[in-house]
Amino acid sequence: MFEDPRRKKQLEKFIQKLGLPPTAPVEWSLLDLALTHPSISRVENYEQLEFVGDSVVRLISAELLLEIYPQEPVGEFAAVRSILVSDRVLAELAEYYGLEPYLLIGSNATGNPAGRQSWLADAFEAVLGALYLSTHNMDLIRPWLDLTLKTRSAEVFSDPARFNYKDALQEWTQRKCKILPEYQVKENQAFQASKARADENILNSRFVAEVWLKERFLGRGYGRSKKASEQSAAKEAFLSISQEER
Amino acid sequence: MFEDPRRKKQLEKFIQKLGLPPTAPVEWSLLDLALTHPSISRVENYEQLEFVGDSVVRLISAELLLEIYPQEPVGEFAAVRSILVSDRVLAELAEYYGLEPYLLIGSNATGNPAGRQSWLADAFEAVLGALYLSTHNMDLIRPWLDLTLKTRSAEVFSDPARFNYKDALQEWTQRKCKILPEYQVKENQAFQASKARADENILNSRFVAEVWLKERFLGRGYGRSKKASEQSAAKEAFLSISQEER
Repeated sequence: MFEDPRRKKQLEKFIQKLGLPPTAPVEWSLLDLALTHPSISRVENYEQLEFVGDSVVRLISAELLLEIYPQEPVGEFAAVRSILVSDRVLAELAEYYGLEPYLLIGSNATGNPAGRQSWLADAFEAVLGALYLSTHNMDLIRPWLDLTLKTRSAEVFSDPARFNYKDALQEWTQRKCKILPEYQVKENQAFQASKARADENILNSRFVAEVWLKERFLGRGYGRSKKASEQSAAKEAFLSISQEER
Repeated sequence: MFEDPRRKKQLEKFIQKLGLPPTAPVEWSLLDLALTHPSISRVENYEQLEFVGDSVVRLISAELLLEIYPQEPVGEFAAVRSILVSDRVLAELAEYYGLEPYLLIGSNATGNPAGRQSWLADAFEAVLGALYLSTHNMDLIRPWLDLTLKTRSAEVFSDPARFNYKDALQEWTQRKCKILPEYQVKENQAFQASKARADENILNSRFVAEVWLKERFLGRGYGRSKKASEQSAAKEAFLSISQEER
């Protein structure tokens, strides 16, 4: 039995925000824990549930992508999933479902705005962990999360510019080879050189990046900043790799 | 309905090897796919199910570790799980459950012994994916997999030498910071120097490795080989990090 009637009321309210009935078979003590930041208690907090929830959201994403896009190559799934389970998207989902008012967190932690995305995402994962462990299946999660994840994945598929190709490439190389791609950025020699050259994109770009997987060359990209050149190299690498997988 | 009666018999036999009754509600066409290597078909193979199964084994491991070792710090869970879901352990499980005779695979693929661990692990993950998708819960998996995973995790906890600290550290930094630790290995200056120095371990070690996370120093280790010095540095780093998380 969950003891604190005021907290219980709060948690019920949150559950209803997710679209679940108040009678849903939720383990309230787990949900309470999922909505408790480590700044409140070093032991009784959301960290263990976050560890479970991280796998829950990965599994649901995999299942969902397979259901909606059975024709897409697996490499693409991995890329889209890496976006769906990113801190950025999970924190957005936490905001969308209005999680924050129900999270117990010390003022020392909320004072740091840089950490906000991270603890919102962590708590959201922990909530998924608590709901999964309440029934040992996805019955308390998929009814409300599916539609949101579907919308997100459709956005990613329809607008490849939303892809963070560096993340996508990293997810791919990690999964396949357990190593990370390496970037080498140099000044672009063609920059400010003869305007007679054809490729404006290359000419206007101060930096050129190459991405390598150990000894294997994966792609090259140009950009006005180092970061942009790396993204561009990652894009070339990622698209050629997905092509191979088709 | 699953069409090929001979293949169906095979698959039923495999299911019984796992300890499941032949009446288990298995989606036979999915299990068939899970036991089909890409060398047989570029489209109809285990790759999508492997993508799902990878999350299944991560989730089961997380759940199980939380059930058995509720007092351990989360950092330790992550380390142990990284071992449980490694290709090495998954391939061992595939062998233990006698998966290989049921896997359809081209002789061009089996000719390469280096790839064997990898495709055994992949097919095993795919089987987990197929069984999960048959019921959308762990009912067809945990009854037989739990005991084996429990034994493995107990081995890892009781004998830290089984830890691959480099893998464990990488899993941790990936999860926390999305970046990988970097190793710097140098010749050990103290090696072959005055025998008056106290630490035999340091003196007998030709190499010294440091591991860094961006600008943060994580640990230092010594070893007779570069690899050994890196493992030793990873161990120091990993243990001090787990300490922090307690």
